[in-house]
Amino acid sequence: MHPFDTAIALTPIGDERFLGATTPAYANMVGPFGGTTGAALLQAAMLHPARLGHPIALTVNFASALADGEFEIEARAVRTNRSTQHWSIALRQGGEVAATASAVFAQRRETWSAPEATAPQDPPPPESLPRPDLSRRPAWVQRYDMRFVEGGMPDAFDGQERPDSRSAFWVRDEPPRPMDFPSLAAICDTFFPRIFIRRRKFAPIGTVSLTTYFHADDAMLAVQGDRPVLGTARALNFRNGYFDQSAEVWSAGRQLLASTHQIVYFRE
Amino acid sequence: MHPFDTAIALTPIGDERFLGATTPAYANMVGPFGGTTGAALLQAAMLHPARLGHPIALTVNFASALADGEFEIEARAVRTNRSTQHWSIALRQGGEVAATASAVFAQRRETWSAPEATAPQDPPPPESLPRPDLSRRPAWVQRYDMRFVEGGMPDAFDGQERPDSRSAFWVRDEPPRPMDFPSLAAICDTFFPRIFIRRRKFAPIGTVSLTTYFHADDAMLAVQGDRPVLGTARALNFRNGYFDQSAEVWSAGRQLLASTHQIVYFRE
Repeated sequence: MHPFDTAIALTPIGDERFLGATTPAYANMVGPFGGTTGAALLQAAMLHPARLGHPIALTVNFASALADGEFEIEARAVRTNRSTQHWSIALRQGGEVAATASAVFAQRRETWSAPEATAPQDPPPPESLPRPDLSRRPAWVQRYDMRFVEGGMPDAFDGQERPDSRSAFWVRDEPPRPMDFPSLAAICDTFFPRIFIRRRKFAPIGTVSLTTYFHADDAMLAVQGDRPVLGTARALNFRNGYFDQSAEVWSAGRQLLASTHQIVYFRE
Repeated sequence: MHPFDTAIALTPIGDERFLGATTPAYANMVGPFGGTTGAALLQAAMLHPARLGHPIALTVNFASALADGEFEIEARAVRTNRSTQHWSIALRQGGEVAATASAVFAQRRETWSAPEATAPQDPPPPESLPRPDLSRRPAWVQRYDMRFVEGGMPDAFDGQERPDSRSAFWVRDEPPRPMDFPSLAAICDTFFPRIFIRRRKFAPIGTVSLTTYFHADDAMLAVQGDRPVLGTARALNFRNGYFDQSAEVWSAGRQLLASTHQIVYFRE
């Protein structure tokens, strides 16, 4: 079993409730990687027998640091329309809410389609780029193969502030795993906090809220398979304890699989 | 009383519940303008006696078209930490959920701060630009004074597709009203659906989910007052019934007041 599947494994315990547990393979500095927490919240709706279609939007609010160990997820379809379904999802530990999520699922129909955001032109292929040594980073970082085109994690926090926090990098699950919606949702949280890239200085941080819009469908995910996706990220504004960052996830064929935005707490 | 204050007026009816009503002044093609609906959801948390600090994030999920008339909002603080507070908010009509929201409030502290996104350089001042005739648009559009620097609503839907959907425009409440968090939240939904700008063709559309990150604080809002803000918007991807768009709201002094993202349903 792939460690990602272990991380998002949920056991139904009735009444729209599921039991899961954090796993050391995706440990972060404190508690688990937010990407797997968000993926587990999405997975609860995916597994729900009333689920309609596929995710198009997911917002995860990290209300407190999760403790290592078991958690309970409650997923409720608050409204089901002809082609869309709205979910309210909550993760609890010891009876207290530690994270909440809203998700929108939809049955898509073929329509006029067109990209507007653009992927980086001719990035070096992933196999031509070195895999940086991230062995001193938290465990979850080792669960991804990341190859940086630009804006990698600084080798040293030397405090030499950069003019921007832009990154482009190839990323895939390690070991490789065919992409699905939960793993795409988790990859949307692999964009390091922009403050590290911008300031080259450590700061205590924590994602407060993370929103992802899914453009992928099953066919696009099948074409993508277990190959690396290309991620691009930048910050918008750092101000008085909070900054926001936006990112895109591009398929191997340069289709936009997802766009993702988050606001992050920082202490200075 | 300013029509916006009428639109977001809520009467507490106990048990974290509030009563509100749509108002013809902010009518959309079907039901009310989503901006005032989102602002009313935020306002419920603002008015709640347990509220801590000011909003930093708001996600509104539009689960169905609202009917004209009364609605009930329930706002619950699901988690209160030392400096942050997480809210779950729901709007019901006739007992059915029509919209949900999550909001994060925080008490900010002064830290290192820096912008990264950039405002348009030297846009023509609002008073130098014509106010377009939007009199055939829905009522809510008349509640804003909009002056387009680029990418205005097409005069005619001539089907001449444009290469992008970028807009920049000055916008303020009409009549002028000092900006606060609810009005800033509503302005974040005044960016017309990008598909109209891009395709110059009408399509049935509906915002599904809208996320706003607030960088403003009370002092920045006081400095802004009732002057126009500068909005900038673009789409990311249009695909099989859904597209996403991102926008920024800049103060008169070119500080980023808010960034905002939404995913929108479209037909055809």
